[in-house]
Amino acid sequence: MSKVAVVGHCTTKFSLDDVSIESLLVLATKSIFEQTKNLTQRDIDAVLVSTNANKKYLSAIVSEMTGISPKISHNIESLCNSGTNSIVSAFSYISAGLADVALVVGAERFDSPGQVLDWDVSRGEYKHPIFWASMFTKARKREFGTTDEELAYVSAENHKNATRNPNAYNPKKYTVNEIMNSKKITDDLRLLDCSRPCSGSSAVVLASESVAKRFTDNPIWIRGLGQKTTSASFTKNDLIKLESTKIASQQAYQMAKISPNNVDVAEIHDAFTVCELMILEDLGIVQKGHAGKYVIELYNTDSKKINPRGGLIGAGHPLGATGISQVVEIATQLEGNAGSRQVEKAMIGLVQNMSAAATSSTVLILES
Amino acid sequence: MSKVAVVGHCTTKFSLDDVSIESLLVLATKSIFEQTKNLTQRDIDAVLVSTNANKKYLSAIVSEMTGISPKISHNIESLCNSGTNSIVSAFSYISAGLADVALVVGAERFDSPGQVLDWDVSRGEYKHPIFWASMFTKARKREFGTTDEELAYVSAENHKNATRNPNAYNPKKYTVNEIMNSKKITDDLRLLDCSRPCSGSSAVVLASESVAKRFTDNPIWIRGLGQKTTSASFTKNDLIKLESTKIASQQAYQMAKISPNNVDVAEIHDAFTVCELMILEDLGIVQKGHAGKYVIELYNTDSKKINPRGGLIGAGHPLGATGISQVVEIATQLEGNAGSRQVEKAMIGLVQNMSAAATSSTVLILES
Repeated sequence: MSKVAVVGHCTTKFSLDDVSIESLLVLATKSIFEQTKNLTQRDIDAVLVSTNANKKYLSAIVSEMTGISPKISHNIESLCNSGTNSIVSAFSYISAGLADVALVVGAERFDSPGQVLDWDVSRGEYKHPIFWASMFTKARKREFGTTDEELAYVSAENHKNATRNPNAYNPKKYTVNEIMNSKKITDDLRLLDCSRPCSGSSAVVLASESVAKRFTDNPIWIRGLGQKTTSASFTKNDLIKLESTKIASQQAYQMAKISPNNVDVAEIHDAFTVCELMILEDLGIVQKGHAGKYVIELYNTDSKKINPRGGLIGAGHPLGATGISQVVEIATQLEGNAGSRQVEKAMIGLVQNMSAAATSSTVLILES
Repeated sequence: MSKVAVVGHCTTKFSLDDVSIESLLVLATKSIFEQTKNLTQRDIDAVLVSTNANKKYLSAIVSEMTGISPKISHNIESLCNSGTNSIVSAFSYISAGLADVALVVGAERFDSPGQVLDWDVSRGEYKHPIFWASMFTKARKREFGTTDEELAYVSAENHKNATRNPNAYNPKKYTVNEIMNSKKITDDLRLLDCSRPCSGSSAVVLASESVAKRFTDNPIWIRGLGQKTTSASFTKNDLIKLESTKIASQQAYQMAKISPNNVDVAEIHDAFTVCELMILEDLGIVQKGHAGKYVIELYNTDSKKINPRGGLIGAGHPLGATGISQVVEIATQLEGNAGSRQVEKAMIGLVQNMSAAATSSTVLILES
């Protein structure tokens, strides 16, 4: 199996702009050519597009608009983890020897159809993800005594981190008090407990070991990956753990031959505040039930270890771009190019990206 | 690189039924479990769904509905060659060692949004594929003196073959005369020159060499594959050849170490009659400009070598299922299980599947 590295990456500024999906995809693609040493259109063997937009043939369109004639070209969709599904697919094309260089570009508009979970009658009228997040929160409060204050710290931490991220859609600090007094949306969650769907695009270029050094002096290797889809149905979920994340992370740790203790920096899928607490525990970074206190400590010590770019809550959540933007951040950290967001001596990074109440998860381990 | 085989396959009856995309996907998936020896839900590492439907999370939904909890799960879209893109992706997951067994299931409804080419202003108001097929036909008549009768023979041949295919949506013979007098749609093409979008689903199970024999005594190996996207824009097309098909087939022949002469049976993408003539030439099966006479000979000798199931014109064209149903037919032929459609001593089969005026093509070589 050929080794695969991230050799180029970029993220556009996330916003609420009313811009076409094609323009978003092209913006990130043009930018990655500008930013990646020696990369030309002729190098690209595969173009994979990640989005939930109801448009067709987008990988061919973005290739056409940017002068690429790839061998492999298609769109990939798996709701909010479309981005990491695309990266794992590109990894497999390279690893199998079908491609040497793959461009993965993800984009979404603020009004994406991927925001609504409209197939599962077990959710009743509750098609918006906030309702499952609210049920997770209720269960967690019951089981572990999680407080509204602990949840608010998750939001405060991510918003604080986002102020160091020039591409965040609304980089602004909020106090715990402000968060706890923001507009109530459900029994358990308030406006500032939620990530915000937005417009944005991100891209990475992956390359095989044999060509990686042409494009960068500092390739970031994908050392481990895991994926799991447990269900498409909310009713099967255990409300106090994210089974798919647990299984995917075990696969990824095993492949990378590391343990959670080795992770220096992580981007995790904080679609809602409660998710961050659950993910930290199901990744094995924190003991089950203890993530609330851990996040307060992160905040108070100004740690950048978790979601240095501000996560989904701080940076925004353009669905098809999200998983890719997480990988962009981890690659930037492992290169040592994260500026004021830099986690010192970051050698091993983790990405956790999930869909639809964590019924599906991807975990990636990257190393410099 | 691990070898990859087709170890199970099925196709539903194509129709104009108003049935949901979820039901179509589940129908093919249930059927493949019934038809594949020893295959259980626990064996499936990857579920890839191929469709142009504007629905989300379909791979998780079909997994849920059929009891599968895959590692890898997502939807793939590239218009009319979504099916073979999905198969190549599954091939790469297995070949890279990320999966041992992959289910690829494709489906489409008769009213699929993938039928309209709505992005390319170079097509002006001509968003329906028949307009590019009509331009191909004009150019071909000019260049090679192709006649309406030769075109009609393509339709007659495919309709005749479809009468031996119980899953064809409308298995009915037409005379050359009937075809040449069917309703005129453009200057150059008539109703019976066209394939018909319809509802249907097809599925294949791919497996690595290490496990293939558990599921069949007669694995059908994917020996070669090629893919190319030249453009998303009609204006760049050379109207007398299908550049992407030519390039993809060269890759596939090279990988399989065969020449076009070695192909015993082929399923090719006859979206319109003119396409079959162009494809036969660009695959190197017939010399450029000579496919008209070749097809008349196929018809008169009752050859089943090309499109034994009736192609898209004879069997119907459920977009996301089409490429998969082509592979199903070739696997059936190479197993020797094609009954009255059987091509004698078929050892090497070819699939050619394309999108949007052949701006993108896939070619696969299979061997028993």
